[in-house]
Parts: sequence; C-alpha cells; structure tokens
Amino acid sequence: MDSQQFREAAKAAIDDIAKYYDNISDHRVVADVEPGYLRPLLPASAPLEGESWDSIQADIQSKILPGITHWQAPGFMAFFPCSSSYPAAIAEMYSNTFNGAHFNWICSPAVTELETIVMDWLAQALGLPECFLSGGPTHGGGVLHGSASEAILTVMVAARDKYINEATAHLPEGEEKEEEMWRLRSKLVALGSEGTHSSTKKAAQVLGVRFATVPISEKEGFTMTGEALATKLDELKAKGLEPFYLTATLGTTDVCAVDDFEGISRTLAPRVGKPGEIWVHVDAAYAGAALLLDENKPLAKPIANFHSFNLNPHKWMLTTFDCSAVWVRQRGHLINALSIKPHYLRNQYSDNELVTDYRDWQIPLGRRFRSLKLWFVLRAYGIRGLQAHIQSGITLGESLEAKLVTRPDLFIIFTKAHFGLVTFRVSGDSEEKINSRSQKLYDAINASGQFYLTSTVVKDHFAIRVCTGVATVREETIQKLFDLLVETTEGQLKLE
Amino acid sequence: MDSQQFREAAKAAIDDIAKYYDNISDHRVVADVEPGYLRPLLPASAPLEGESWDSIQADIQSKILPGITHWQAPGFMAFFPCSSSYPAAIAEMYSNTFNGAHFNWICSPAVTELETIVMDWLAQALGLPECFLSGGPTHGGGVLHGSASEAILTVMVAARDKYINEATAHLPEGEEKEEEMWRLRSKLVALGSEGTHSSTKKAAQVLGVRFATVPISEKEGFTMTGEALATKLDELKAKGLEPFYLTATLGTTDVCAVDDFEGISRTLAPRVGKPGEIWVHVDAAYAGAALLLDENKPLAKPIANFHSFNLNPHKWMLTTFDCSAVWVRQRGHLINALSIKPHYLRNQYSDNELVTDYRDWQIPLGRRFRSLKLWFVLRAYGIRGLQAHIQSGITLGESLEAKLVTRPDLFIIFTKAHFGLVTFRVSGDSEEKINSRSQKLYDAINASGQFYLTSTVVKDHFAIRVCTGVATVREETIQKLFDLLVETTEGQLKLE
Repeated sequence: MDSQQFREAAKAAIDDIAKYYDNISDHRVVADVEPGYLRPLLPASAPLEGESWDSIQADIQSKILPGITHWQAPGFMAFFPCSSSYPAAIAEMYSNTFNGAHFNWICSPAVTELETIVMDWLAQALGLPECFLSGGPTHGGGVLHGSASEAILTVMVAARDKYINEATAHLPEGEEKEEEMWRLRSKLVALGSEGTHSSTKKAAQVLGVRFATVPISEKEGFTMTGEALATKLDELKAKGLEPFYLTATLGTTDVCAVDDFEGISRTLAPRVGKPGEIWVHVDAAYAGAALLLDENKPLAKPIANFHSFNLNPHKWMLTTFDCSAVWVRQRGHLINALSIKPHYLRNQYSDNELVTDYRDWQIPLGRRFRSLKLWFVLRAYGIRGLQAHIQSGITLGESLEAKLVTRPDLFIIFTKAHFGLVTFRVSGDSEEKINSRSQKLYDAINASGQFYLTSTVVKDHFAIRVCTGVATVREETIQKLFDLLVETTEGQLKLE
Repeated sequence: MDSQQFREAAKAAIDDIAKYYDNISDHRVVADVEPGYLRPLLPASAPLEGESWDSIQADIQSKILPGITHWQAPGFMAFFPCSSSYPAAIAEMYSNTFNGAHFNWICSPAVTELETIVMDWLAQALGLPECFLSGGPTHGGGVLHGSASEAILTVMVAARDKYINEATAHLPEGEEKEEEMWRLRSKLVALGSEGTHSSTKKAAQVLGVRFATVPISEKEGFTMTGEALATKLDELKAKGLEPFYLTATLGTTDVCAVDDFEGISRTLAPRVGKPGEIWVHVDAAYAGAALLLDENKPLAKPIANFHSFNLNPHKWMLTTFDCSAVWVRQRGHLINALSIKPHYLRNQYSDNELVTDYRDWQIPLGRRFRSLKLWFVLRAYGIRGLQAHIQSGITLGESLEAKLVTRPDLFIIFTKAHFGLVTFRVSGDSEEKINSRSQKLYDAINASGQFYLTSTVVKDHFAIRVCTGVATVREETIQKLFDLLVETTEGQLKLE
C-alpha cells in the first residue's frame, strides 16, 4: 500500500468509523455469536500473497462486527464504561504515526515531556495534593500505564522493596541481612478490603506474597474503615506476618463505595516515616474522574497521606483504552525498584540525570505515546466539557434511582446512585426470593440485547449493577431501561 | 466534535500522516531539543473551555514534531526497529473504534477469537512446533501482550508456580508444605546469559527472585551453550539454590547471537517432566521474525523442547507498537498462575469453559484489540511480502558488512551481519585505542543527525551496532552511511 492508497483507504475507514458512531444505538449491545463463530469464516492459514485492501476492509463488516460488543452504545451499562471520543481517536492516529518504543527520553523527547506536563495538568484538575506533581515538594509525579492492574502491580513492587530495605536498614551488609530480607519476604502481606478490585489480589499472586482482606459491612456502606483495618493488622501481626501494602478504593467495583481515607490515615499514622510503614495506594480507576467536579474535591485531600493514586482516563474520561494515570508521592521508590541500566539503554541525557526515563516507572521497557490522547481530550473538551460529561453520568444514575424507588413493589435499591452507579434488587419476602428474582431479571434483560448490565454478589446479596457513565446515555435511555425493567419484572412475577 | 467535524479533522490528519511518511527522510533522525523544551511552550494547566480543533492540530507540527525521534526514518539504525505500516495504521483506527476493555470473551468475542486464529496463523508461518498451536497436542496457544518485558514476566510467574507446586506435590496440605513453599521461594533463581536482554533481569527483580547469568564467550560467538549452562546450574545447586527458569535468546540485543538450543535441551533433558524441571522461554523479540524465511525454519525445531516463545511483530514485522506475540506449550500453567474470578467477571460462557478468557494469560485485566493489526498486516503483505521485507533487512546488513571489510585500515567487523544487525569497531593497534576511536566515531555519527546508531560493550569491547531492519532503509542509505563512516573516521585519524 503506497501513500496514495493509504489516503484513500484510511479516508474510507474514517467514513466507516463515523457511520459506526452515528448508528451506535442500532446495534444489539452484546455480540450475539456462539463460541467459535469466527474460525469457520477464516482460512486455516495466512495468505501467501498479499490480498486486496477491499477484501480486507470488507471483512470488518461481515466477520468482525458481528462479534463486537458495543462498549460505546447507550445500552452498555455493564462493568464500568470504557469510553472513547473523536479527539482521542485522532490523537491515536498521530501517536501511531510517531510509532516507536520510546523507552528513553531521547527516543522521542516529546513523548516523555508531554506526559509529565499532562499528568501535572490532570493532577491539578483533579485537585490531587501537591505532593503528586512532578515539581512538588516530595519529588513525586505521574506516569501513564496501560491498566490499573499494571499500576497496582508496579506500586506494589516499589512498596515491597521500600518496606524490606527500611526494615533491614539497621543491619550491616552481609549474610545476616540477606537472610533477614528473605525471611521478611516470606512474611509479607498485601491488603485490600472485600470490595477491592481483584487486580490487587492478582498483583499479590504475581509477586508471590500473601493477600488479606479487611472485612466491610453493609452498615458502613461497604467502605473499609480505619477500625476494621486496625483489627486486621493486629491479627496479621499476631501471626508474625508483615503487612506492607494496602489498596484503598475510591469507587469500588461492586457498589462504588469510597473507603474511609481519614480513618485509614489515622490507623496508619503511628508507622508513617518509620520502618514498617505501610504503603497505601488509592485505586480510583473509575470514580477518580469525578474529582473533576468541585463538589468532590474534598475527597482528594486526605490522599496526601498516601503513597500513590491511579485513575483510568480510559474509563470515564473519554480517552481511548488503554490509558491508566498513576501518580506517586516519591518517584525515587519506583526508580529504585525498577531501574536497570544495560549499556544499550544508556545515553548522555539519562546518565547526567537531566531527564525522566519513564521505563524506570513501569514494568515494560517500551512505551506508547499515550499522553497525546489525554492532551487532546483535555484541550478539546476543556475542564468544563469534561465536568459536564461526568455530571451527566451522575445525574442519569440518580434519575434511574428516582424511577426505581417509585416502584417499591418491584424494586429495592441496594446501594444508592453514586458516581453514576446504582445497584438494585427485585423485591421479595425472603432473601432467597430476592436473589432468585433478581438473577432472573438480570438474565432476561441481558438476553434482550437492548442493554448490557452486570451483577454482583455482596455478602450473599445478588444485586444488579447499572452504570450510567457511557457518553451516549441519555435520559430517554434511562426511561427505556426502566420501562423494560418494570415490564420484565411484572411479567416474571405474574408467572410465579 | 460531532461526527461531521470528525470526518473533516480525521481526513486532514490522514493527509498530514501520509505527508509525514512521504517526507520521512527529510527529518533529522534524532530530535534536536534540550531537556525541558516543551514545558515553556505549553500553558501551566489544562484549559477551562474546550479549544478549537485547528489550534490543537497545529500544535502537532509546531510543538510535538520537533521533539520526535523518527523511528520510521531510513537513518534510524539504533536499537532494533519499531516499524509501522499503512495497513497496521488503519487497523489501529478500527481497533480504537471498537474500543473496550475486552477482558472476557463476551466483552467482544471477535477480539478473543481473531487473536487465537491469528496467533495460529503466525505460529504456522514461523514454523513453530505444533505444541504452540491452540489446537495442538499439549493444549498450548498464543496470546498478544504489549511488550516482551510483560511476556517474560508473565511466563516467569507461571514457571515459578509450576516449579513450586511440583516440588511440593509430594507433601500433604498443611503447615509443613506451606513452610517448604516459602523456603523454596526464597531460593529461586531465574537465569539468562550475559547476552540476555535486561527484561529478564527486570522480571526477576519485579518478582523478587534471584537472577544469575550464564557466561558467554567471543569464541562461541556470544551464544549460551549447554555446557556453560550446566556449569552454572551445578554452581547454583551447590549453593542450595533452586534454578527454575531460563531465558534462551534467538537474536541477542548486543549482537543478534542465537543461543545453542540443542545444547541447552541436552543439558536440561534429565529434569524434563520431573519436579525440578526448568522452564525455558525463548526470547526472539526481534529476530524471531526471520523465522518467516524458509532457510531459518530449522532454528524453530528445537523450541519444541521449551515451554514458551515470544516475538514482537512491532519490531521487524510492520505491526504498530505495541504487539508482542507469546506462545506457550501448556496454557494451563498460565491460567493456574494468573486466573482470578470475582463475581463481576463471571458469565455463562466462561463458567462453562466454552471460551478463552485471555485475561488469565496476562497480567492486566483489560485488553486492546491488538490482533486486528496483525491480521491486516499478514493479509495485506501476505507471507511472501513479509518475507521480502525481512530479506531486505538481512541483505542490507550484509551489504554494509561487505563495504566495511573493504576498508580494514579503518574498520574491524566485531560480529558479522546476522538478521540485519552488524557490529563493528574502528581499527587500532590496541584495545584501548579501538575502544576510544569507536566511541568517538559513534558520537560523531549520532551528532550528525543523519543517522541514529546505538553502541554496546561486550566483554569490554565497545562496538557500534547498525540495525538495517527499518522498512525505509535502501541500498543507497547503506552507501550514504558507509561514506559518512569512512569520511568521519578518516577525519578523526588525521587529527590524532
């Protein structure tokens, strides 16, 4: 394909893409194909000779599209949103043009420098404490990873090495110290609450350290409290274990609960700055975007007591997947844990410490030019435009809740609308009935193909989650969903 | 930005992009900016109101482009290539359109199924042993990761868990077994050779296990031999350590050496299928693409004795970054080590084991639709087109070597052209002089801005690396580089 053919093919693709978004509501939300649908449609091996562009492009419509679940469709209210936007799409085109592995500053200075600047912009816009800015007092800063899982694994590695180094700092170098380091490693425990996303447990599994959960309760709104944390820490210490890391969550996956940051801070305060300090990471992958609204800014303040924070702009901030923003209070801990300097990666700029080499802030060596899309989104929407988008998701969640409460004969709110997530159950006179009716409604709605919802089970309560953060959701979508919920539930109850 | 504005802006971007590639040779290869160049050019914070598209797009030219190092330019002969192509660029546009986190099959069946199929296509095209096919006898298969670093970390986790589980399988569940597992963990050693890419050492650092290197020698062409491995293993065992993992390399970063797969197999054979078996991963991140050529197919045969293999199509296979293809012989080891099933990720297809959920084959949860670009590239070029591309990189490396040997007064070949990489040094009557002259030449060439080369230091020999795999390199580029090398070296020698 030469550049003229590229112009034509790519412009045809642009029309295709615009059409796809213009008609996004026409699709069944979840792909309606059977496992294994694609293999019979494709040859058994790659072609020997190149194929015509037309035949390749045509297969997008005929073979790929039927197998796509439409995350941008208004009926997509499952999981959390994974939103794109036109400015992000164009940014991706440029970022792929300036294709490279970009691991060092010199491999494309713009890639590194724009990232530092945009991460500072975003930290300010969210009202994150100054310690997370690249020029802040504690030498912190932000970096873009691919996913929250990667972010959490990365800070957990830094936390582990910090913990072990500090706990053995008093020992002279030598065998005894070495032994103590290995002994400590075998006792480490990473913590989350029962509501913490599975990525923390997975990170612990990857690193081969223990994982323990702090209990949460319905009474406390499923948030992790300082008291519950204190009890769990005592328990672990009594067993001779070494808790070194905690994920606190701003917007849990199940119900969008916010852990009690102040309480957690108080519990951990006696250890701060001493050996045995526990690294606290705040996972705000989805709901962190709500800090853009002034009313939520107070939530960011206590994060100054913690060590790191992540929010995924690819979730609720209109930035194409993947884009996970991570900030640390002291970048030195990341660099100490992750830096490796073989000769072929050395250069004068890095050697003289004039520049940031983000490869030392992450697990992979190579890096995509991810900041470009975040920059485009921040500029094309402006902070006000992004605030309007976030506010819309919140308002629509509240609207659904308001509708659901008008029918207490059919529905029970499980957790109130918060950050665009409402969870509810079908009414019933026993827990068992509520669970089975809710499961049945959930299955029926998803089978309809008009909406895609997910469910959760918290403390044996089965609840339906509805997330209203996808950018194409409108009040009429909410009304349509509510009508379908009512109609389906009434139908089910009649058959009982 | 509405869809009409998107059509216009995106099509203007397409023209921009095509122009960039048409004129790729006009740029200074390495960005000529000072550290910190960008911050004074941008506002201190994100705009409150959205900005016009024109002003955003204009900044690409005026502020970003000067900070770009042009990895697609013919003068880019540093590191290994990171190549893009028009078909891959269009695929990325579609893949961003079908934006989503795609962690489960149902989150977009096409994303999972195309990946399985395309990984089978590619395995066949490379001549990988049958055990790496998804339908092969050992239940293996391929998955796309972002980078070789991620691939290596992931298989190292699987290797660790396999090793520990097998070594403790004879013990009844309980405290004693638990203790033995922790004891083993503290003794684990991951291995590479002195030529193994730093990502293996970094993975060991991330997992908190020891890393040991097998020595290599100039006499053996810097390859890891079975004998050297045997000696190192004996040494580690004598210290009571537990070697559990080895990276063998097909095309080392320094000099593109290929480790002695047959010899390594022989050394490890007595442990195969027993507790204490060492997981061997083959890192073919760059040179693996050369297996597309029939003459290199025999190299793939002994890989049947190993456990996993990776090649990065984003390096030498015209597929936009990031795209790292990983195959394992037994997918169960990945899934056992990495699977986590919270309620919100469960669904009937996964629960009934009807489908592949690639999230259990990797560290992140979310996944990009990466297989689309690999599919487009395989189809648009065909195997023959890709073979021609690889052959060209190889031939051009040989061409440079042939030129260099015509001037033994100026140059010494350090390692012969292999897979498009040739390394050389400046002649001199002492090792010290050779090193200093080579370093001087290297600095001068990079300062010229016409070419970007990297260097390496192997066994205290400083050598200049020239990698000829970038798709835009032509015979005339090689001639131009050679002329510049001659002219610069002659000039330097005159001044001595």
